[in-house]
Amino acid sequence: MNITEKVLAAHCGKERVVPGEMIVAKLDGVLANDVTCPIALREMKEMGYETVFDVNKTYFVMDHFTPNANVKAAEQSKYVRDFAKQENMPFFFDVGTMGIEHALLPEKGLVLPGEVIVGGDSHTCTYGALGAFSTGMGSTDIAAALATGELWFKVPETIKFIYSGKLPEYITGKDLILHTIGKIGVDGALYKAMEFTGEAINELSMDGRFTMCNMAIEAGAKNGIIAPDDKTIKYVEEHNHSLKEFNVYYSDDDATYSQIIEIDVSALEPVVACPHLPENTKFVSEICEKYVDQVVIGSCTNGRIEDLRAAASVLKGKKIHKNVRTIIIPATQSIYTQAIKEGLVDIFIEAGAAVSTPTCGPCFGGHMGILAKGEVAVSTTNRNFVGRMGHPESEVYLSSPYVAAATAVMGKISHPLEVK
Amino acid sequence: MNITEKVLAAHCGKERVVPGEMIVAKLDGVLANDVTCPIALREMKEMGYETVFDVNKTYFVMDHFTPNANVKAAEQSKYVRDFAKQENMPFFFDVGTMGIEHALLPEKGLVLPGEVIVGGDSHTCTYGALGAFSTGMGSTDIAAALATGELWFKVPETIKFIYSGKLPEYITGKDLILHTIGKIGVDGALYKAMEFTGEAINELSMDGRFTMCNMAIEAGAKNGIIAPDDKTIKYVEEHNHSLKEFNVYYSDDDATYSQIIEIDVSALEPVVACPHLPENTKFVSEICEKYVDQVVIGSCTNGRIEDLRAAASVLKGKKIHKNVRTIIIPATQSIYTQAIKEGLVDIFIEAGAAVSTPTCGPCFGGHMGILAKGEVAVSTTNRNFVGRMGHPESEVYLSSPYVAAATAVMGKISHPLEVK
Repeated sequence: MNITEKVLAAHCGKERVVPGEMIVAKLDGVLANDVTCPIALREMKEMGYETVFDVNKTYFVMDHFTPNANVKAAEQSKYVRDFAKQENMPFFFDVGTMGIEHALLPEKGLVLPGEVIVGGDSHTCTYGALGAFSTGMGSTDIAAALATGELWFKVPETIKFIYSGKLPEYITGKDLILHTIGKIGVDGALYKAMEFTGEAINELSMDGRFTMCNMAIEAGAKNGIIAPDDKTIKYVEEHNHSLKEFNVYYSDDDATYSQIIEIDVSALEPVVACPHLPENTKFVSEICEKYVDQVVIGSCTNGRIEDLRAAASVLKGKKIHKNVRTIIIPATQSIYTQAIKEGLVDIFIEAGAAVSTPTCGPCFGGHMGILAKGEVAVSTTNRNFVGRMGHPESEVYLSSPYVAAATAVMGKISHPLEVK
Repeated sequence: MNITEKVLAAHCGKERVVPGEMIVAKLDGVLANDVTCPIALREMKEMGYETVFDVNKTYFVMDHFTPNANVKAAEQSKYVRDFAKQENMPFFFDVGTMGIEHALLPEKGLVLPGEVIVGGDSHTCTYGALGAFSTGMGSTDIAAALATGELWFKVPETIKFIYSGKLPEYITGKDLILHTIGKIGVDGALYKAMEFTGEAINELSMDGRFTMCNMAIEAGAKNGIIAPDDKTIKYVEEHNHSLKEFNVYYSDDDATYSQIIEIDVSALEPVVACPHLPENTKFVSEICEKYVDQVVIGSCTNGRIEDLRAAASVLKGKKIHKNVRTIIIPATQSIYTQAIKEGLVDIFIEAGAAVSTPTCGPCFGGHMGILAKGEVAVSTTNRNFVGRMGHPESEVYLSSPYVAAATAVMGKISHPLEVK
């Protein structure tokens, strides 16, 4: 079996599962946010359940429209807050303690290798970077998960990706995953597992791996996953505050895959996904004179400390172009304080960027950086669908923090080497 | 003449003006923001003017719904941005360089003693702290100001306030002005100048004086004003980057006032304005068991470095109450970096507060901390009208940063001495 199959087998009490098989798996954790949680809780109650299956395995993170962007958002958060208070939930994260959910949960040690986690958010697949099976779902499925602590799954087929070669300078996990989606398309891994392997993956930091698994959904995948190694174990040891036990799984040598795709990264250039799909990828060098109005650096995809360090390495001592609004959002409070400690926030503000408290805000057009008609943004986020960041006639280009920072300085989509 | 009369006389080419007299004054500066500027510019064009009277005396600050909270806000900012770009305006402040207008303009040296400044924002009266005549106006008046660089005024009567006695610990400019509004009511100084004098005013820092003049409008005043002293001149010397000339005026010994009000501050306790008017003041000690859901520290009233230091002195080493969302917003980028340098932002985040990029957001119910139905906030802002911070059935209590920080820790309206 491969790692995805092993994790699922272990959670449905079977020795072996095969792709296409229907199983019911026990859940180690269920996540919802301020958008999906109110719907899920109301559905759960409709189903006749008054409360969640286990408050210690239920994680509610108010991160999308918070700090509350409007009265509707305030009412949604309040509904969840009142429930969390009533049930005395230990893992309810609100303004002040919250961070962007998919950065926060690993940081708090709430997702561990070998676990099965579902979330009311498409990018729940992020935790595959820890060797977990994690996937996003609609709020009605989350309602069932909250109520019962288990869910049915069809065991996915797996595509194995082998990234060979040494990562060139400025090439990050974001470039790898964008390049991959560009190759296979936004439905290239529909309901499949994407298993990322190879020496370039070994070379990636945990932050880079989170970024890759985060965007598996953008190829239509059920999950993205990377087998744990020393870096994973070190990360888990640093964050598993409650010393929860966990299991590590690896794909067998004779594991079966629906497809194996090899990608040589050694000559890769920085990649940008052009409007309006993550599959519309080009190398930065192929994009000429694309002027931008806004740059966003942050989100569950690229708001981690390594991302902020990358942006700061480009922005240090530079001034952001006068036509560009640049918004930089550390994904969690501890990333924020670490960035302050390292002088990164000073670099950002000195360069002329706005540094916001953690929020998903601009990524999905929620608040904190919405585009007007005809405006263009470069963003380290994960989706560039029509209207994603505001007006239906605005445009979003997806990139790494290096390219985003270079673009902020140059005023047009640029390679970091172009910043003098 | 008193200081207000002298400033106005100097700007209408007269040796002497008297209260009630109609004058046309030359303007040293005209301010508008992302809410008022689009209306004013459109009105200006309706009047047949294609551009502003002087780009060097025109200050546009995108601070209310920015970073853009929604598409409408994005369109408003874009309209102003396009105009500023076309006219090559040197003082257009956008996301990344902007701060809250009434903290930003003095900091940038754009308002100086003896000047006449009008702004499309009620709290333009803030600059009276520098010995300027400054006042807020509707967008149509601002349109005329932008077009012609002059406006008619009725010379206001002046109420002289004499604050005697030494300021007790924890008593700030905010407490003085709230207490004053509590005494005279929200129409107590209708179309009058409030001239703040006395030993307690001398004792106040510039930040405290800005806070007092900022809220003159909350007593209905045309302007608030404080005669320049050594602190004023030192402030101006530090911020008058372009070395613009300015004039300092003082009230004559025989100046006339419509009223003189003496207030002994020596026994004052921290003051809170209860819903739904700034005149509904009580001492904190008179308020029992008022639980709150949100604390906001920031705004043009109390988002300056001294305010953040006050909040940090209470929050240091403490944890914010689990039922309270606390949002702290430095008013400008340089206040933000100074707060980082002094370790204040670390204290805030460590305590469990969200620290946002500069924005007016929550103060006026725009974004970045909106209240749901039935929720209660303590806020260092300037207005607690019905629905001001969100839902019409929410409540806002106004206070100093000391009281706001203490409330954040205790979960109910508290004196800073109650924080153990």
